[in-house]
Amino acid sequence: MSTKAYAAQAAESPLAPFSLTRRDPLPNDVVIDILYCGVCHSDLHQARNEWGNTIYPCVPGHEILGRVAKTGSAVKKFKEGDLAAVGCMVDSCRTCPACEAGLEQFCETGGTVFTYNSPDRHSGGVTFGGYSESIVVDESFTLKVSEGVDLAATAPLLCAGITTYSPLKHWKVGPGKTVGIVGLGGLGHMGVKFAHAFGAHTVLFTTSPGKAEDAKRLGADEVVVSKDPDAMAARARSFDFILDCVSAQHDINAYLNLLKLDGTLTLVGAPERPLPVAAFNLILPRRNFAGSAIGGIPETQEMLDFCAGRGIACDVETIGIRDVETAYARLLKSDVRYRFVIDMATLKNPA
Amino acid sequence: MSTKAYAAQAAESPLAPFSLTRRDPLPNDVVIDILYCGVCHSDLHQARNEWGNTIYPCVPGHEILGRVAKTGSAVKKFKEGDLAAVGCMVDSCRTCPACEAGLEQFCETGGTVFTYNSPDRHSGGVTFGGYSESIVVDESFTLKVSEGVDLAATAPLLCAGITTYSPLKHWKVGPGKTVGIVGLGGLGHMGVKFAHAFGAHTVLFTTSPGKAEDAKRLGADEVVVSKDPDAMAARARSFDFILDCVSAQHDINAYLNLLKLDGTLTLVGAPERPLPVAAFNLILPRRNFAGSAIGGIPETQEMLDFCAGRGIACDVETIGIRDVETAYARLLKSDVRYRFVIDMATLKNPA
Repeated sequence: MSTKAYAAQAAESPLAPFSLTRRDPLPNDVVIDILYCGVCHSDLHQARNEWGNTIYPCVPGHEILGRVAKTGSAVKKFKEGDLAAVGCMVDSCRTCPACEAGLEQFCETGGTVFTYNSPDRHSGGVTFGGYSESIVVDESFTLKVSEGVDLAATAPLLCAGITTYSPLKHWKVGPGKTVGIVGLGGLGHMGVKFAHAFGAHTVLFTTSPGKAEDAKRLGADEVVVSKDPDAMAARARSFDFILDCVSAQHDINAYLNLLKLDGTLTLVGAPERPLPVAAFNLILPRRNFAGSAIGGIPETQEMLDFCAGRGIACDVETIGIRDVETAYARLLKSDVRYRFVIDMATLKNPA
Repeated sequence: MSTKAYAAQAAESPLAPFSLTRRDPLPNDVVIDILYCGVCHSDLHQARNEWGNTIYPCVPGHEILGRVAKTGSAVKKFKEGDLAAVGCMVDSCRTCPACEAGLEQFCETGGTVFTYNSPDRHSGGVTFGGYSESIVVDESFTLKVSEGVDLAATAPLLCAGITTYSPLKHWKVGPGKTVGIVGLGGLGHMGVKFAHAFGAHTVLFTTSPGKAEDAKRLGADEVVVSKDPDAMAARARSFDFILDCVSAQHDINAYLNLLKLDGTLTLVGAPERPLPVAAFNLILPRRNFAGSAIGGIPETQEMLDFCAGRGIACDVETIGIRDVETAYARLLKSDVRYRFVIDMATLKNPA
């Protein structure tokens, strides 16, 4: 199946129209006509080869939402016309303890197949992501989406949503807990919404005082400007959990110091260079510094269902595919509230 | 009560005889004639003012074991002649949530009174430690010791023992778990003994291949020479828990990489400068980096009882008080297997 897409042909080239081939559906495959695809900062990193491992042409996009166009003969969960979604993974070994536990992102055989730039077991090439008309994915890695949700605003839940939902669940954020969210971007704004929805006292940390009002609208009970040393000192030892959504280099010790005894600070952003950690910040009192990556397929489904039931989605700005480079440029300036989503109709029918 | 002791009078001065005054016992106090006092690296740091906060004269020593000489009128747990022990703390606020939970070392009011170089609520000066004939401590911070144990070898349990016992218990080390102990010194050799006693598969990491045989004698199932990159790579993602007992600067990422999904690496040594942590080592897979400090009074008693019941104690080299500077010099070269203990009779009766 020849499929229209947008691809980077090299690190220096802007994304441009490209034609790729999707496989004919195997018995367990779902063919999805893509309606919306979110723009994650990872898309930009990969397109520009900032992780040094990009295989070109590269079709980014792992916040994919669409409707089922066709199903393989053995597919049980989906029928033609159903809403369907695909996140950061399209396959894994499925048999190791992590996969069996529904944590396919941590597949112990290294078998996680990411949605783009991963070896494709079927084509022999690499996987191509959601900046395309359609995608073919095994139903085991395809998520169900409830009718009636805001489709564009739901798409980024597939990465920004699950990446924040999973650690907040894993570390048992809920009523009676004081929870910090560091950074109000694509991930952070969902962290605030989820921490609030789970019933925690939610505190947003930001370097931008101008974001305070918006943070409160999103669900923050308090906003702390992290550049204010007095405000930071006043919160020492007061947090049960902190979700750190910042990908830039920053002082992790300033946040570790805010944790109570047995509190945990979890990174979901991945700063490029190692973060210096002062041993005494972990020892007195006893504290944890952790990380988390997206979430497994069962938890991603749970998150989508939770969001549909509670009317939670991302705050998005919908763009046409031809604006993706402009969106990347704005992303680099953190000029987005809070996620760009590509309306894929603009790929099929360029104006 | 005038009491013989050994004190540092300045960072540059060797420890030398000193006379101090212990308070007359208050109703809840226990007066202990000290039989043995272990030599912890902290004693050396404090005597030499390496943490910059030493108040002179300084009498170190927080691995204290002796016999009760006298009890205050309200003391219930002890009578004259009983064995008794004192560790790193002699008081705390006793009312905050941490103290109420038996975690007095993490007293939330900052009220932990350490055994030496801490403000002394009774004298108005600072606390003086165990390099002395006797000590007067509230019974709530005095531990019971079973008759029949090796007294010299039991003394260092009060710091080296509890510092390793507590995190191994907190992170639920036991049968079916693969546990690493990093470094075979005063702490590490007790880490090996406890991890083995708790039924874990115990792996010692050392930079010294010459320590392998001794590590196995102490209870290690395997020894990995951490300078061997192939041996380290072969153990990637295979540990449930790692207890890092190294106080010198070292590459923490090399050990984080050895943890399984949801594994924890806990620091009990405190390197002087911050340790760089690569975010991806915490994110893929999800892992924890933590710290731990000694243990509370209830857990210290539990540890002493466990050791008495299981015949566990430290491997020690007993010295006279006049040899303490020689012991410090050897400590700096890691030339001790595995803890120096001062026979305090040598203070009362110098040869």
